[in-house]
Amino acid sequence: SIHTTLFEDRVFGHEDWKRYRSASWRHRVEPVVFLRVAAGFVWQLVLVLVVSVCVGLLHTFVPSFDAWLEGLHLSTPFTMVTFALSLLLVFRTNSSYSRWWEGRIIWGQVVNFGRNYTRQALMWFPPERPDLRAAAVRWAAAAPRILLAHIREGASPLGEARGVLTEAELSWLAGWSNAPLGAGTALGQLVAAAGLAPQLQAELQKQVELYTNMAGGCERIFKTPIPPAYTRHTSRYLMLYVVTAPLLLWSSTGWATPVVAVVIAFLLLGVENIGVQVEEPFHVLPLYDICRALEANIRELEHSFAPPPSAPPPP
Amino acid sequence: SIHTTLFEDRVFGHEDWKRYRSASWRHRVEPVVFLRVAAGFVWQLVLVLVVSVCVGLLHTFVPSFDAWLEGLHLSTPFTMVTFALSLLLVFRTNSSYSRWWEGRIIWGQVVNFGRNYTRQALMWFPPERPDLRAAAVRWAAAAPRILLAHIREGASPLGEARGVLTEAELSWLAGWSNAPLGAGTALGQLVAAAGLAPQLQAELQKQVELYTNMAGGCERIFKTPIPPAYTRHTSRYLMLYVVTAPLLLWSSTGWATPVVAVVIAFLLLGVENIGVQVEEPFHVLPLYDICRALEANIRELEHSFAPPPSAPPPP
Amino acid sequence: SIHTTLFEDRVFGHEDWKRYRSASWRHRVEPVVFLRVAAGFVWQLVLVLVVSVCVGLLHTFVPSFDAWLEGLHLSTPFTMVTFALSLLLVFRTNSSYSRWWEGRIIWGQVVNFGRNYTRQALMWFPPERPDLRAAAVRWAAAAPRILLAHIREGASPLGEARGVLTEAELSWLAGWSNAPLGAGTALGQLVAAAGLAPQLQAELQKQVELYTNMAGGCERIFKTPIPPAYTRHTSRYLMLYVVTAPLLLWSSTGWATPVVAVVIAFLLLGVENIGVQVEEPFHVLPLYDICRALEANIRELEHSFAPPPSAPPPP
Amino acid sequence: SIHTTLFEDRVFGHEDWKRYRSASWRHRVEPVVFLRVAAGFVWQLVLVLVVSVCVGLLHTFVPSFDAWLEGLHLSTPFTMVTFALSLLLVFRTNSSYSRWWEGRIIWGQVVNFGRNYTRQALMWFPPERPDLRAAAVRWAAAAPRILLAHIREGASPLGEARGVLTEAELSWLAGWSNAPLGAGTALGQLVAAAGLAPQLQAELQKQVELYTNMAGGCERIFKTPIPPAYTRHTSRYLMLYVVTAPLLLWSSTGWATPVVAVVIAFLLLGVENIGVQVEEPFHVLPLYDICRALEANIRELEHSFAPPPSAPPPP
Amino acid sequence: SIHTTLFEDRVFGHEDWKRYRSASWRHRVEPVVFLRVAAGFVWQLVLVLVVSVCVGLLHTFVPSFDAWLEGLHLSTPFTMVTFALSLLLVFRTNSSYSRWWEGRIIWGQVVNFGRNYTRQALMWFPPERPDLRAAAVRWAAAAPRILLAHIREGASPLGEARGVLTEAELSWLAGWSNAPLGAGTALGQLVAAAGLAPQLQAELQKQVELYTNMAGGCERIFKTPIPPAYTRHTSRYLMLYVVTAPLLLWSSTGWATPVVAVVIAFLLLGVENIGVQVEEPFHVLPLYDICRALEANIRELEHSFAPPPSAPPPP
Repeated sequence: SIHTTLFEDRVFGHEDWKRYRSASWRHRVEPVVFLRVAAGFVWQLVLVLVVSVCVGLLHTFVPSFDAWLEGLHLSTPFTMVTFALSLLLVFRTNSSYSRWWEGRIIWGQVVNFGRNYTRQALMWFPPERPDLRAAAVRWAAAAPRILLAHIREGASPLGEARGVLTEAELSWLAGWSNAPLGAGTALGQLVAAAGLAPQLQAELQKQVELYTNMAGGCERIFKTPIPPAYTRHTSRYLMLYVVTAPLLLWSSTGWATPVVAVVIAFLLLGVENIGVQVEEPFHVLPLYDICRALEANIRELEHSFAPPPSAPPPP
Repeated sequence: SIHTTLFEDRVFGHEDWKRYRSASWRHRVEPVVFLRVAAGFVWQLVLVLVVSVCVGLLHTFVPSFDAWLEGLHLSTPFTMVTFALSLLLVFRTNSSYSRWWEGRIIWGQVVNFGRNYTRQALMWFPPERPDLRAAAVRWAAAAPRILLAHIREGASPLGEARGVLTEAELSWLAGWSNAPLGAGTALGQLVAAAGLAPQLQAELQKQVELYTNMAGGCERIFKTPIPPAYTRHTSRYLMLYVVTAPLLLWSSTGWATPVVAVVIAFLLLGVENIGVQVEEPFHVLPLYDICRALEANIRELEHSFAPPPSAPPPP
Repeated sequence: SIHTTLFEDRVFGHEDWKRYRSASWRHRVEPVVFLRVAAGFVWQLVLVLVVSVCVGLLHTFVPSFDAWLEGLHLSTPFTMVTFALSLLLVFRTNSSYSRWWEGRIIWGQVVNFGRNYTRQALMWFPPERPDLRAAAVRWAAAAPRILLAHIREGASPLGEARGVLTEAELSWLAGWSNAPLGAGTALGQLVAAAGLAPQLQAELQKQVELYTNMAGGCERIFKTPIPPAYTRHTSRYLMLYVVTAPLLLWSSTGWATPVVAVVIAFLLLGVENIGVQVEEPFHVLPLYDICRALEANIRELEHSFAPPPSAPPPP
Repeated sequence: SIHTTLFEDRVFGHEDWKRYRSASWRHRVEPVVFLRVAAGFVWQLVLVLVVSVCVGLLHTFVPSFDAWLEGLHLSTPFTMVTFALSLLLVFRTNSSYSRWWEGRIIWGQVVNFGRNYTRQALMWFPPERPDLRAAAVRWAAAAPRILLAHIREGASPLGEARGVLTEAELSWLAGWSNAPLGAGTALGQLVAAAGLAPQLQAELQKQVELYTNMAGGCERIFKTPIPPAYTRHTSRYLMLYVVTAPLLLWSSTGWATPVVAVVIAFLLLGVENIGVQVEEPFHVLPLYDICRALEANIRELEHSFAPPPSAPPPP
Repeated sequence: SIHTTLFEDRVFGHEDWKRYRSASWRHRVEPVVFLRVAAGFVWQLVLVLVVSVCVGLLHTFVPSFDAWLEGLHLSTPFTMVTFALSLLLVFRTNSSYSRWWEGRIIWGQVVNFGRNYTRQALMWFPPERPDLRAAAVRWAAAAPRILLAHIREGASPLGEARGVLTEAELSWLAGWSNAPLGAGTALGQLVAAAGLAPQLQAELQKQVELYTNMAGGCERIFKTPIPPAYTRHTSRYLMLYVVTAPLLLWSSTGWATPVVAVVIAFLLLGVENIGVQVEEPFHVLPLYDICRALEANIRELEHSFAPPPSAPPPP
């Protein structure tokens, strides 16, 4: 959808950062992007515009309205309301951002899991069990994709894991309704089957536990939004604020009010809207890019895995 | 009660998020919900309304009151008070939300405990002890429900655990006055009885420790509110602020004051009220849904537990 | 003292939460509580009252003062000062609350320590050493009380531990000037004496380490207040603000100034005062209740400790 | 580039702190630094200046503009916008600083990794394998540099590791496209080759895991900026605010407006600009200094490593 | 220096807290302390005073200046600037306090290290190696002092460790340029020499790792200030604000301006100055007191170390 496209994060590189840090880029007006962002709450903006124009027309053609509005010093109630609205917007922004960043941290841990599990499995699994070694690599590459499918709409665990797991493994996985639970079981059973010293097995099982916990973390953020009572209270008062603002603005800015009111509404509704979009982080974070990069790492570990020249393999 | 219904959180899915992210939904006025929220502090709103009308009547019929109010430039004291009130509302909102989210994180850990304990028990408990394996699964499914009953009103540990534990286990559990303590003991004893390598036993006992710590975390949040001195100071000054606001507003908004004063009071009292409702998170979090989903996971682990095709069971 | 009584936290139950969530209770004016809170800074309030009355008298009887005050538009300097005062009050409130909550978290960990240490000791200590098992239970129950006495005025470690430890243990403990250090040593030595597998001993020693770290955490918070330079800067400017406020308020509120000034002073000094009271959390947290509840848990563990029906004791 | 030079952090010592704490130094105006900072957004400042002058000229020569501007009471819309802009600037500042400090913490952990890995390898690796001991020291010194090259532009892993690793190791490392992955593998394989007790091997492997996780942490911060929607919304409204400010200021400050408007713009754009510069912390943190200091530590450990006089080496 | 004396924190006891919680003490004006704090930025205050007087003289004797100043409505630009200044002051205060508190937490961990290392060494080191036991106690007592000397000006590691370590150990330590690195090595080697079970050795080595990490934490905070770009931006705009404030204040407060301007400047510069003073926490935290108290704990552990009556030493 347009919103997903607009808010989906990209993976940054050096060139992106350079452009981003250049003030000319940041402060540039981009009308197309502007319009696409506004598309998310175009009806709200139109409503503000219509109210502004109505206030203007009433003011011009209905002298009694003019007198009534003059008698109403609206700056007092607006001032009394501003601080509470400000607090609600700050709360919305900070909470959404924390959730988004926590989502990103969880996926950073998924990457760490993939690398550590693969490295330790290749290091400790006995060389005489190449089947187990290959299976560990396959499941380490598939597990993040299975988790992705678990929390992202339109993706299926089997679809994502196809091409990574074998057919037999795919049909085994199909037997699980909660696919990450199955992936965790497979990762754990492979380690249990490798016959490691209990201490080393425990270390590898901790990686499996990490994967399970990260799946739990994703579900926690996905299933529990910020208490909706806050969100509704914020959205409605914000709407009331921007819709009644033309009444206050008219005596100050006259026929510039329609423009001024829409600019103010776009600022405030925009802040709130970005907050709501990033509140569920998994539909905006670049999870596919993260999975692809991790899979490349795991493949590289598999193919390049060899002791460095200075460390002959232990006897 | 009406409040619990109103504030109880639901588990979100993809469809909920889509509706939630749509600006038209968020900014929609819902009079019924509005009225039900207002029901929580309807007397306060009525009081503000009555004060507003009284100020209007006095203003209209008692000229001396009018003169006295005109002489009183109330905007100065209101301005001096606003920043402190703002700080108290921010503090209330942030602290309550942190407690609510910490409660949710604790229950996320309970879910992690249930999955990890079950997986590791099924993986490591010797196959020749099917009794122990089945008991571990039963207790892993019962422990979260027992914790739920421990912190939620109207639920009893035995009632929640019935149907999960055997009759013998239920009567054993009935011997404990602090039921989560009993559940922790059972979970730990099962592991001790399985004759695992000390390293692996220690790993599983860490899961039991996690369960005990999460029970402690629930009790900590439940038994200790935000220092009541803050809550009272905030509530009373807020009340004073909204009740005296009509005196300030009258000279600005005249007979629109009753409406304006109630709208402002609803905004401010609403923010405070949501904060107080979510301060004790366990009566609003969807704990029954969480327990049900976890039990389904544990059942799935029990029934689907088998090594993946690529890992023959260790000899 | 009156302050301790006023600010000491209580342990909350379901009924407390219900009353607390009821808006009518929260917003109720309680004159007795009001007066007792005010007792903490009654001289400051009296000073504000006296200054207000003096300003009124000067204004009424000394025309030149009136002219001078009129010429002084004090709203400008007050506005310039407000944002800094606001930041200092926010800082004071947030920092004090964080310290208070960290203190509560530390005592939550002490509870976790007591439960885990007891459960693991009863589970792992050999049955043929009932003396060690009983001693572990005694020390687990005594250690939190000893820590309480270490950081709370008017309590002595020996007094708190009497009735829990044996006479011999009490006189052994009397040999320590830092009693929690002695308790940690006893807890550790008991574990070392039990002849456990190193892995299991290490797990139990981690509980002892947790106890030692929590004692360190209590000392850290107790011994180090928020940098006093901040506290003094805040308190003095706040005092200056509320004492000079009548000069600003007079031209706005006339003879209502004494009341208005005292109400404002009570709001601001009240926020600061609560912050200072909870900054040292251990004299307001309900530590005795926590210790009592933990001791009951430990006794229950001791008496009800038996494998659940499904887990016959390991051979 | 000029920006990197300007914002790159230096390592502080006692003398730096003394100068820094001296108020005369802090409050000193440094025109050269001032100009260099302004260079980052000079066009924005010029634009503000031009707009100010245009407003002045229009005001002076076009009476109708003057009347129009007088009729436009712009303070109302500016007040309504200020709180939202304030929130966006606070959000930008806090989020950027958190990312920067998290980046610094990650590199603090890299330093800890280097010291602990080296100390433990020298302590536990068998004396009869001097080749392994020397290789562990080499890789511990090279790994941070390889990570530095991975996230900093213009540095190559091989270039940074040259002179630390042997030629054979360099060509082995050249086989990896993700060099920190290779370094982690080498560090882990060396430990696996040393034939340690599983418990001690597990401890050392935890250090390798820490290195892998810190590499993941660097990538997480580097690849994921603050949601660009926030950054753009902030930058554009800030630009709109400072560019239209002269319209508001003119009626207050007349021909002082060009100076006043540029001073205000420099303040606001400066805050935003510093935030954007430190958002990607790795190009401003003194990573080369950190790596150099760590390498010196590792060399010192290698050369001075001997048991203290009181601890004869274990037999 | 005067600053260090003024800002150095003291260790608090019950009596200090009582005085501190008494409102009369907090709100008391202490002219001597006032003057000593002001000494830190006396030139800035003098400058504000001089500017105030100059504005007054110009106003009185130069009518054209008076007219020009009247025409300049400075409240508009001051209002536009206040929110950004406010944000910068809040940022400075919070970041400095966080660093200070993190420094305190690090030293709390150093205390925990000292107690745990000593207790575990005395518990696990074999009784037949009294030399190792005594050396472990000596190094545990010396290590915190060596770290103190590493980050505090004017203290040398050898000077601090003299009287704790033996002459042989001191000369061994003199061979290290980074003394905490040497202390960590000694602490680790003693454990390695004690011939413990690997599991127990690993636990003790974790304490050594903690010491190394805390040394790294101290260096991190010490070597990296808050990005100086923020500090300079804040300091300079704050200076500009307080120096130009008399121009704004004159029309409001007339010849009271010099006093009012200096009072405001002292408030704002004071907040900023305290923030800068506590930003490098190690020169204000009472580290010598902490080390002394820890050494007393370690000595007490050494002398009182004996199993409690109920736990005969393990055979």
